[in-house]
Amino acid sequence: MTGPKTRPMTGNRMDSTTTHGPGLLGGVLARGDVAACLDDVAWLRALLDVEAALARAQAAVGLLTPEAAEAITGACERDEYDLESLGDAAASAGNPVVPLVAEIRSRAGAAAGSVHRGATSQDVLDTAVMLLARDALVPLRADVSAAATAAAALAARHRDTVMAGRTLLQQAVPTTFGLKAAGWAVGLHGAADRLDAVVHTLPVQLGGAAGTLAGQDGAGVAVVRALAAELGLAEPVLPWHTLRLPVTDLAGALGSAAGVAGKVALDVVLLAQSEVGEVREGVPGRGGSSAMAHKRNPVAAVSARAAALRAPGLVATLLTAAQLQEHERAAGAWHAEWLALADLLRTVGSAAAWLRDCLEHLEVDAARMRANLGLTHGALLAERVTTALAGDLGRDAAHEIVQAAAREAFASDRPLAGVLAATEAVSARLDPAEIARLLDPAGYLGATDELIRRALRAHRAHRERGARAL
Amino acid sequence: MTGPKTRPMTGNRMDSTTTHGPGLLGGVLARGDVAACLDDVAWLRALLDVEAALARAQAAVGLLTPEAAEAITGACERDEYDLESLGDAAASAGNPVVPLVAEIRSRAGAAAGSVHRGATSQDVLDTAVMLLARDALVPLRADVSAAATAAAALAARHRDTVMAGRTLLQQAVPTTFGLKAAGWAVGLHGAADRLDAVVHTLPVQLGGAAGTLAGQDGAGVAVVRALAAELGLAEPVLPWHTLRLPVTDLAGALGSAAGVAGKVALDVVLLAQSEVGEVREGVPGRGGSSAMAHKRNPVAAVSARAAALRAPGLVATLLTAAQLQEHERAAGAWHAEWLALADLLRTVGSAAAWLRDCLEHLEVDAARMRANLGLTHGALLAERVTTALAGDLGRDAAHEIVQAAAREAFASDRPLAGVLAATEAVSARLDPAEIARLLDPAGYLGATDELIRRALRAHRAHRERGARAL
Amino acid sequence: MTGPKTRPMTGNRMDSTTTHGPGLLGGVLARGDVAACLDDVAWLRALLDVEAALARAQAAVGLLTPEAAEAITGACERDEYDLESLGDAAASAGNPVVPLVAEIRSRAGAAAGSVHRGATSQDVLDTAVMLLARDALVPLRADVSAAATAAAALAARHRDTVMAGRTLLQQAVPTTFGLKAAGWAVGLHGAADRLDAVVHTLPVQLGGAAGTLAGQDGAGVAVVRALAAELGLAEPVLPWHTLRLPVTDLAGALGSAAGVAGKVALDVVLLAQSEVGEVREGVPGRGGSSAMAHKRNPVAAVSARAAALRAPGLVATLLTAAQLQEHERAAGAWHAEWLALADLLRTVGSAAAWLRDCLEHLEVDAARMRANLGLTHGALLAERVTTALAGDLGRDAAHEIVQAAAREAFASDRPLAGVLAATEAVSARLDPAEIARLLDPAGYLGATDELIRRALRAHRAHRERGARAL
Amino acid sequence: MTGPKTRPMTGNRMDSTTTHGPGLLGGVLARGDVAACLDDVAWLRALLDVEAALARAQAAVGLLTPEAAEAITGACERDEYDLESLGDAAASAGNPVVPLVAEIRSRAGAAAGSVHRGATSQDVLDTAVMLLARDALVPLRADVSAAATAAAALAARHRDTVMAGRTLLQQAVPTTFGLKAAGWAVGLHGAADRLDAVVHTLPVQLGGAAGTLAGQDGAGVAVVRALAAELGLAEPVLPWHTLRLPVTDLAGALGSAAGVAGKVALDVVLLAQSEVGEVREGVPGRGGSSAMAHKRNPVAAVSARAAALRAPGLVATLLTAAQLQEHERAAGAWHAEWLALADLLRTVGSAAAWLRDCLEHLEVDAARMRANLGLTHGALLAERVTTALAGDLGRDAAHEIVQAAAREAFASDRPLAGVLAATEAVSARLDPAEIARLLDPAGYLGATDELIRRALRAHRAHRERGARAL
Repeated sequence: MTGPKTRPMTGNRMDSTTTHGPGLLGGVLARGDVAACLDDVAWLRALLDVEAALARAQAAVGLLTPEAAEAITGACERDEYDLESLGDAAASAGNPVVPLVAEIRSRAGAAAGSVHRGATSQDVLDTAVMLLARDALVPLRADVSAAATAAAALAARHRDTVMAGRTLLQQAVPTTFGLKAAGWAVGLHGAADRLDAVVHTLPVQLGGAAGTLAGQDGAGVAVVRALAAELGLAEPVLPWHTLRLPVTDLAGALGSAAGVAGKVALDVVLLAQSEVGEVREGVPGRGGSSAMAHKRNPVAAVSARAAALRAPGLVATLLTAAQLQEHERAAGAWHAEWLALADLLRTVGSAAAWLRDCLEHLEVDAARMRANLGLTHGALLAERVTTALAGDLGRDAAHEIVQAAAREAFASDRPLAGVLAATEAVSARLDPAEIARLLDPAGYLGATDELIRRALRAHRAHRERGARAL
Repeated sequence: MTGPKTRPMTGNRMDSTTTHGPGLLGGVLARGDVAACLDDVAWLRALLDVEAALARAQAAVGLLTPEAAEAITGACERDEYDLESLGDAAASAGNPVVPLVAEIRSRAGAAAGSVHRGATSQDVLDTAVMLLARDALVPLRADVSAAATAAAALAARHRDTVMAGRTLLQQAVPTTFGLKAAGWAVGLHGAADRLDAVVHTLPVQLGGAAGTLAGQDGAGVAVVRALAAELGLAEPVLPWHTLRLPVTDLAGALGSAAGVAGKVALDVVLLAQSEVGEVREGVPGRGGSSAMAHKRNPVAAVSARAAALRAPGLVATLLTAAQLQEHERAAGAWHAEWLALADLLRTVGSAAAWLRDCLEHLEVDAARMRANLGLTHGALLAERVTTALAGDLGRDAAHEIVQAAAREAFASDRPLAGVLAATEAVSARLDPAEIARLLDPAGYLGATDELIRRALRAHRAHRERGARAL
Repeated sequence: MTGPKTRPMTGNRMDSTTTHGPGLLGGVLARGDVAACLDDVAWLRALLDVEAALARAQAAVGLLTPEAAEAITGACERDEYDLESLGDAAASAGNPVVPLVAEIRSRAGAAAGSVHRGATSQDVLDTAVMLLARDALVPLRADVSAAATAAAALAARHRDTVMAGRTLLQQAVPTTFGLKAAGWAVGLHGAADRLDAVVHTLPVQLGGAAGTLAGQDGAGVAVVRALAAELGLAEPVLPWHTLRLPVTDLAGALGSAAGVAGKVALDVVLLAQSEVGEVREGVPGRGGSSAMAHKRNPVAAVSARAAALRAPGLVATLLTAAQLQEHERAAGAWHAEWLALADLLRTVGSAAAWLRDCLEHLEVDAARMRANLGLTHGALLAERVTTALAGDLGRDAAHEIVQAAAREAFASDRPLAGVLAATEAVSARLDPAEIARLLDPAGYLGATDELIRRALRAHRAHRERGARAL
Repeated sequence: MTGPKTRPMTGNRMDSTTTHGPGLLGGVLARGDVAACLDDVAWLRALLDVEAALARAQAAVGLLTPEAAEAITGACERDEYDLESLGDAAASAGNPVVPLVAEIRSRAGAAAGSVHRGATSQDVLDTAVMLLARDALVPLRADVSAAATAAAALAARHRDTVMAGRTLLQQAVPTTFGLKAAGWAVGLHGAADRLDAVVHTLPVQLGGAAGTLAGQDGAGVAVVRALAAELGLAEPVLPWHTLRLPVTDLAGALGSAAGVAGKVALDVVLLAQSEVGEVREGVPGRGGSSAMAHKRNPVAAVSARAAALRAPGLVATLLTAAQLQEHERAAGAWHAEWLALADLLRTVGSAAAWLRDCLEHLEVDAARMRANLGLTHGALLAERVTTALAGDLGRDAAHEIVQAAAREAFASDRPLAGVLAATEAVSARLDPAEIARLLDPAGYLGATDELIRRALRAHRAHRERGARAL
C-alpha cells in the first residue's frame, strides 16, 4: 500500500481551534500521537485530500482534464480554509462537506464546475475518515506493539523471577513474573496484529447520491479504482454508505485492543498496591504526592485504565449505528459515528501510549515477590506434601495431617516447613530437605519456561511481520 | 437554590483552545448552549470557583482569616491561567488540579499555604463537575422543555387533524396528529422533570485524601455545609468519592431524555419521508439539495437523532465506571468519567437543541395526512362494517363478506365504500350514508380528544412547576 | 398502592419449562428470589392476570356484564395453558399475546367475544411486564436494603476500627472500617430508595391498536383508571406504547443499584486479597479449594461483581430501544426490551442477593487492618510531623528533614518514629511521646465518627420510610 | 479441523429444564437452531466432553493409562447427571465445574483420582464454551450465509427493477432493487466470512490453577496440543485465562453480523411500510391481523431487528469484562462472560434465522417501486435537464427555469415532462422525446449493473470458500 500523495503527517495548522486539543484534560486522557491525527485541522486536511484525489482520479480515467485536476489539487492544498465558518455552515447542510465544496469551488477558477463531480458528501467524509483512521492507527499500533515489546523484554528478563500466581485475587500456586509479562506480550501483540489486519482493508467510499456512481459518466468503477490507488486505500466491491463493516471492523479491533490494554494496566495497578508492592512505575517526578511521601501513584497504568474503560461504550454506539443506516444513506446513524469513532481511536490511542510508557518504565521488585510468596507460610504448596505422603498414609489421612499443620503454621506465624518437620507422621517419612524441596515455589513452576519461550517466539514473529509490512 | 457567587455564565476566554470548540463538526453535533458550558475555559473557571469557595467556606467556619479567603478568591478570579501548560502538567500528576493548585498558590501571596487546605484533587474536580453539570443543565433543560411546549402547541392546534395510526410501520386505525404531538409533549416534559429532579440533588464533594475530612481541624462537616451554601449545591451525607450515585443519577436522567428526544426525532424523520410527506421542517435555506430540488432533508430531526444515539453507550460507560471505584478513591474509573459525562451532557444538549428547533419549525400537511389515510381504500375501518353486519349475518359470514370487498377494493383501486354499497348482502342492510359513516376515520378516534386534554393539562402543570422553580 | 387481586406471589407451575430456570448456571448467576418472579410461568400468569383485570375493569365501568367478567376471570385462572405451544404460535404472530387470547377465548364460553376487548397485544404485555417488574422489585429491593442494613451494622460495630484509607490502590491517610462500611450503607440504601421511587410509578398500559382507546366505546379513560385500580398500578396520562419513560426509569434505577453493588463487592474482593487479608466471607464450606487449603475465595462478592457487570450493557440496550419506537407501536425495538429488562432485573437481583449474603457474613480482621497500617512504617502521617516542625524550621526545611527520615525508615525497615527521634533537628523540638502522638493513625481520623453518625441516621430514616411504605 | 470425537450435535436431554428453552418468548426471540446449541444440556455435554478429552489427551502423552482415560470417557458419556443439583452446588463453589468433577469421580471407579488432573475449573469451562460457540456458529453462520444467498438471488432477479434511491429517507436519484439487494448480499456474506475467520481460531484452554501447567508432570504443552487435537480446537500460545482475545474476537464478529442483519431488516421494514409498499413478507398466515385485514406485519424483519438490537450492549459487556480479568484468573469478570456470550450467540442467531426467513420469502412489487418514483413528478432527475440546457443558457439561468417548472409540476400535480415541454425556453431547445429520455429513471442508473455483477462475483467466491471449508 502506498500512502496518499498529498498528505504530510503534520499539516499546517490553519486555525488554532481544534476539536479536541490536548487542553486541560488531554494530558491525562489523550496521551500519545493519536489525538493530533484527529484534530479539526487533520479532519479538514483529510477532506481536502479526498477532494483533490477525486479530481486526479477522474483525470486519470479521462473524465477531467489534467489541468482541471491540477487546479483543484492546488485549491485543496491552500491553507486558508476557516474551520469555524465551515463548522457554522455545516449546521445548515447537515455536514461540513457541503460548505467546504463551495469554498473549494471559489478557489478553483475555471475548474470550479469539476470540483466534487458526481460525489456525495458521504463519499468524501467516509473516505476522509478512513484516511484519518489509517493515520491514527500508525502511532496507535506502534504504541501497542512497543508495549508488547516492553512486556516481552520483561518476560525475558524475569524468566526466573518467582511470584505468587493469583486467582480471584487470592494467592494460588506459584508462577513467574516472566510468564505474567509473556502473557501481556502475547495479548498486546495479538491486539496489534488485529489492528494491522484492519488497516489494510480500509476502503475508499465513492458512490454518488444513491450509491450508483451515476455521476461518473459510465466510468464509475474505474474512478473508484483510481481513487483507491491515489489514496492507498482498498477498493470496495460496492459503495458501503449504509453497509458499515469497515467501521465495525475498526470498532472490533479497537475494542479488543482496549480489552488487552485495560487488563495489563489492571495487573500493574494491583501489583503496585501498597500491600503488594511488587512493581512500581519508575518515572522520576511522576505520581508522587507532596503530602504523602510514601505514595507513588502508578499514574501511567491508572490513566491507561481510564482510557480503556471508555472503549466498550463507544464500540456499542458504533455497532448500534451500523444497524440503523437506512436505504442508501442514513438519517442520523451515520452522523452519530463521526465522534464515536474518533473518540474510540483517541481513547485507545491514549491507553496504548500510557501503557507503553508504563511498561517501558516498570520497576520490578523480585525480592518483594519472593517475600509475598511467604505470606501464606508455605501453604501454597501444601498439596505437594500431601501427595508425597499419600502413598503411605492414604490420601485422606495425608490431607488431614497437612491441613492441620497449615492451620498451625498460619495461627502461630511460623513456616509450614518447620511445623511439618515437627509433625511425627511427616518427619517419619520426609526429611527436612525433602520437605523444603516440596515447598519450594521455584520447584513447582510447571511449563513456565517453555511457555515463555513460546511467547517470545510468537513475539519475534510479530515483530518480523511488522518490519516486513513497513 | 442560589447560584455560586463568582461564576458568571459566560466567563472570559483565558485561552483560545477549548476541549471541544464547535469547530468543524460542532455545528452539527454540538448545537445549542450546552457545549459552551463545558469547554476548557468553563472547566478551568469551575475549578477555580471551587478553590475560592472552599477558602471562603473555611473562613466562614473560622479555619481561615477573611483576608486569606479574600486573597485566594482574588487569585482564583484572575484570568491568566494557561490551559495548555496546566494540561501538560496534569499528565504527571494524573489530574489537572495538582498543577492548578500550584498556580493559585503562586498568586495567593501570604495565603499560599491556605490554598486547597485539607482538600484532595477529587474534591475539587468532582465539585467543579457538579457546577458544570448544573450550568449545562440550564440550557439543556430549557431546550427539552421548549421542545415539549412546541409539541404541546402542535397538539392543541391539530386536535382534529386526522391521520393514520401506524404500528410496526403499517397503517393501523386512525388517530390524530394532535394525539401524536401530545405524546411527544408528555414524553419531553417528563424528561425535563427528571432533569429538574436531579439538578436539585447535585452535591458538593469534600473529604480530603481518604474522605475523613482529617485536614479540616475538626470542622470538616461544617466546612462541607458552608461550601455547599457558597456554591448552591447540596450537602451530601458523606463524601462520595467512590459512591457515584450523583453521577449515575445524572446518567439515568440524561439517558431518559435522549430516549425521548430520539423517539420524537425518529417520528419526524419517518413522517417527512417522500412517500409519507406529512411534515417537513420549515427553516428556509436549510436541508436543501442544490442538485435535487425536490428534496428537503429534515436536518434538525436527523441531527437530533444522531446526537441522541450517542447517549446509551456513554451512559453504559458511566454505569461501568461507577462499579469500579475502589476503596477511598479509584484507580482509573474516576478519570474515565470526566469526558464520558461531559460528552453525555453535550450530546443530549445537542439533541434537545436540534429537536426544539425541529418542533418549533415543523410544518404539518393535514391534507396529506388525510390522503394517506385513503391509501388503504377504507380498509382501516373495515372491521366496523363487519361489526355492524354481525348481528344479522353472524360474525364469520360478515367478516368474509367485508374481507372480500376489501380485497376487491384494493385490487381495483376503488374506495371500499363503493364496493360495499355494490355488494348486495351489505346494501340490503346498510345504506351508503351509514357505510360512509362507519368508514369515516374521523368517526373512530376514541378518546383522542380527552387524551389530548389530559396531556395539555399535564404540560401546563410542568410549566408552572418550572416557573415556580425559577 | 394495593396489590392486584388475583396474583399470589407464587403461582402454580403450569409447566415445568421455564425461560430461565436456575439450571446449571443460575446458582451462580441468578441468586435470590428475583429469577423465580420472572420465569415463563410468571410471565404467563401476569399476562392472564392482565386479561382478567381488563375484563373486570370494563365491567366496573359498564362495558361488560359482571357475568362476562367473571367468566373471563375464571378462564384466566385456570392452570392449563401450555407454554411451549403458546411460544411456538407466538412466532407467527410476533408476540405471545395473540395465541394466548385465542386460548382464553376458547375457555371463556359465552364471554369469548368480550375477551381482550379493545386491547392490543402490547397493552397486555406491557402491563404484564410492569406487574413482573413490581413483583421482582420486592425481593430485589429487600436484598439491597438488607445489604445496606448489614453494612450499617458493620459501620456501627467498627466505628473505631482503624485501617488504611486507600486511593489509587495506594495507602493514603488512615480511616476506619466503620466509615468505609457507612459509605456502603449510604450507597446501598440510596439505591434502594431509587428503586422504591420507581416502583410506585409503574403504570398500566391501555390504548388499543393505535393508542386512541377507540375500542372502549367512549369509556376509554375510565377503563384505564379502573384497570390501574384493579392491578394496583399507576394511571398514566397517555398510553405509552412508544414513550418508554417507565422502562428507562426502571433501567436507570437498576443501573444505579448495580453501580453501588458492584462497588461494594469490589471493595470486599480487594480487602480479601491474600496480601491484604482484612476481611473474609464467613460462610462455612463455601469458597474453599480442596487443593489449596489456605485459599478462601470470596464467592459471594465475586458473584455479586459478575452479576453487576452485566447491567450497564443491558441498560444501554433499553435506552437504545427507547429511541427506536416508531409512531404508535414499534417495529422491533419493543420486542428487544422484553429479555433485556428481565435480564436486567435478574442480574441486579442476583447482585443484591449475593451482596447481602456477603455483608451478612463478613468477617473483619481488625488486627490485620492495624498491621497493614504499619506497612509504610508510619509514613502515612509524616506530613503531620512536618507541620509540627514547620513553625520553627520553615516548611521546606521541615519537609526535607521528614522526607529523609521516611526514606531511611523505609530503607532500613524501622518505624519512622524511631528514626525521627534519632534525628537531632526533630528531637530538639519534639519529644518521643509527641512524635508517637503525631504518627498515631487513631489520632488523625478527622470527622469519621461524625460521618458515621450521619450515615446511620440516614440509614434509620431509610428503614423507617421502608416500614411506612409496607 | 476435525470435530470432537464424542459430541453429536444433538445430545440426549438429560433433564427437561433448560436455561433458555424456547418457552413463551423464544419463538419470537430465539429462532433458529442456535438456541438449542446453548441450552443447559448442551453446556453440560460440552463440560463432560472436555473432561473426557482431557483424560484421553493425557493418555496420549503417557500421563494416564489408556484404561483410566477410557473409564473417564465412559463416565462422561453417561446421561445421568442432574442439572439442577449441579446448579445448586455450583453456588457454593462459584462455578459448576467443581461439583461436576465430583460427580464424574463418583462414576469413574478406579480412575477417580485421574479425573480433571492438573486442570482448573476455568480450563474446562472456557474450553467447553469454545465448543459451544463452535457448535452454535454452524447454524448461525449457515443462516447468515443463506440470507446472503437469498439476497444475491434477489439481486440477480431484480437487476433491472428500477426504484428510488433514498437518502435521509428522502427520495434521491434512482437505483435498482438489484443493487440494493446486492448490497445486502455483500454485507451478509462479509459477516459470514468474519464468523468463519473466527471459528477456526477458537482455542482450547488449559493451564491449571495459575496457568503454569504445573499439574501436568512436565508434559503440559504436549497435553495442550493433544487436547486441541482431540477437540478440533486451536492450540494457543499460552493459557488465556485472563487474556480474552478469543472472546473479544467472537464478540467483534458477532457484533458485525448483528450490524448487517439489523440494517437489512430495517430496510425491509421501511420498504414494507403501508405508504411505500415495495416489498412484503410472503409467508402465508404470518403477520396478519384479524381486525385489520389490510395489514401484513413484516414479522420476520421486525423480529430480526429486535434480535440484532440486543447485540451491541452484550458486546460492550464482553469488552468490559475483558478489561477486568485480574492476574491469573479473574474475580467476577470471567463469570460475567458466560451468559453474555451465550446471549450474544443466541440473539445474533435469532436475527440471522429470521432474516434468512424474511429474505427467502420476500415479495417484491416492481410496479409499486416504479410508481413511487413518480411521486416527485420527475423532479428526481430535473438536474439532468438543467445540464442539458446549461450549454445554451448558462447554468444559473437553466437551473432557475427548471426549478420553476419543478415547483409548478409539484403544485399542479402534473408530470414535470409536460410542464417542461410547455415552457418555451425548454421546448425551443429540447423536444419531448429528449425531455422524456432525460427524465427516465432507467436512463440514469450509473454503474448499477456492473456493481451488481461485482457483488454476485464476490458472493460466488464466498460460496466457494464455504464449500471448500466443509
